Amino acid sequence: MEQNYVITIGRSIGAGGLSTAKVLAEELGIKMYDKNLLLEVASRSGLCPEIFEKKDERASRSKLTSLFGFRSLLQGNGSITTDSIMNEESLFKIQSQVIRELAEKESCIIVGRCADYVLRQKPRCVSVFINADPEIRVKRMMKEGADEDEVRSLIAKGDKKRAEYYNYYTFKKWGDSASYDLCIDSGRFDSAAAVKDVIIDYLKRRFPSTF
Amino acid sequence: MEQNYVITIGRSIGAGGLSTAKVLAEELGIKMYDKNLLLEVASRSGLCPEIFEKKDERASRSKLTSLFGFRSLLQGNGSITTDSIMNEESLFKIQSQVIRELAEKESCIIVGRCADYVLRQKPRCVSVFINADPEIRVKRMMKEGADEDEVRSLIAKGDKKRAEYYNYYTFKKWGDSASYDLCIDSGRFDSAAAVKDVIIDYLKRRFPSTF
Repeated sequence: MEQNYVITIGRSIGAGGLSTAKVLAEELGIKMYDKNLLLEVASRSGLCPEIFEKKDERASRSKLTSLFGFRSLLQGNGSITTDSIMNEESLFKIQSQVIRELAEKESCIIVGRCADYVLRQKPRCVSVFINADPEIRVKRMMKEGADEDEVRSLIAKGDKKRAEYYNYYTFKKWGDSASYDLCIDSGRFDSAAAVKDVIIDYLKRRFPSTF
Repeated sequence: MEQNYVITIGRSIGAGGLSTAKVLAEELGIKMYDKNLLLEVASRSGLCPEIFEKKDERASRSKLTSLFGFRSLLQGNGSITTDSIMNEESLFKIQSQVIRELAEKESCIIVGRCADYVLRQKPRCVSVFINADPEIRVKRMMKEGADEDEVRSLIAKGDKKRAEYYNYYTFKKWGDSASYDLCIDSGRFDSAAAVKDVIIDYLKRRFPSTF
């Protein structure tokens, strides 16, 4: 039987990465995991999903200064104590385990969550990053009726949060071409469906026997 | 008559960007400009090409600290004095003019030289960046018989030089996905021809009536 494949999608705020992931999942007939991954993580930890949502893709200041501590956890025996269960590091560890199990079980798309790094050993994993010029992202988000200043602040803070989270856990640079197989400027296309087509073309080149 | 199109290719050292540009130019039946641009630049300035070659894609320390001076030159009346003819800024300015004229005259590929930034107002310009994991680049370059330490040093210094040059002139970040339409990890493919196919697929999506 042919091995599963996984597509990971990183994205800047307002670049349409989630919409692209949705239409891509639909076209390929596979599942897309985003925040819904947290439900699985919550069920494993026995805690309510709302608690995890608050910590989702967030790197706290204290965490950023405790790199050594996190590395020790990664290299440790994997047991998660009651005391540490609420730490973002523990959430990341359980989440990464869920991602690895999903990747074993089925072909799927995973949005965010450093999935590209978590699955870096998997040969049939394609890492995509979707970006766009900040001005184009502002215009797009304003179409949905939001205030310009609010949108600019949302983009700046959101990008910063994602970058801190990604850079902390992966030891790579968020949004840098060196961190991904394929980066696409979605601002060059009219729709998420068009960006999806670029990804499908790429998949055909990478895995010609599958696509 | 249909407008020309231009493909600009940025690349990290050892990622095979130049090889990709060559096979792409061959397949599309258009010219590829790299260092050969300097011949044209030299002929316009009346100086010998060797002088320019030494300054090619190089941002000197003095230049990096004279941002204001360069900006004034860009905004000035465009005249280049005998005194300043040897400055990298002047070389960049003449080179940019040659790039703009080429882009008006013919469809072509331009490697490096901040061409993506120089042609940022041109709608039918596609900016590509070709990168690869440094370890893969080291292995590839060692196949050509070079010493490992030398190769590592060459990559580190070469990338740094290109980044300084690009970041200085474009006010963008070299190698960052936000700076290009399409970034490709060439390490995922066996050959420059395969990377070229990914670019051709992309061109078909961007300009379906041309490709």
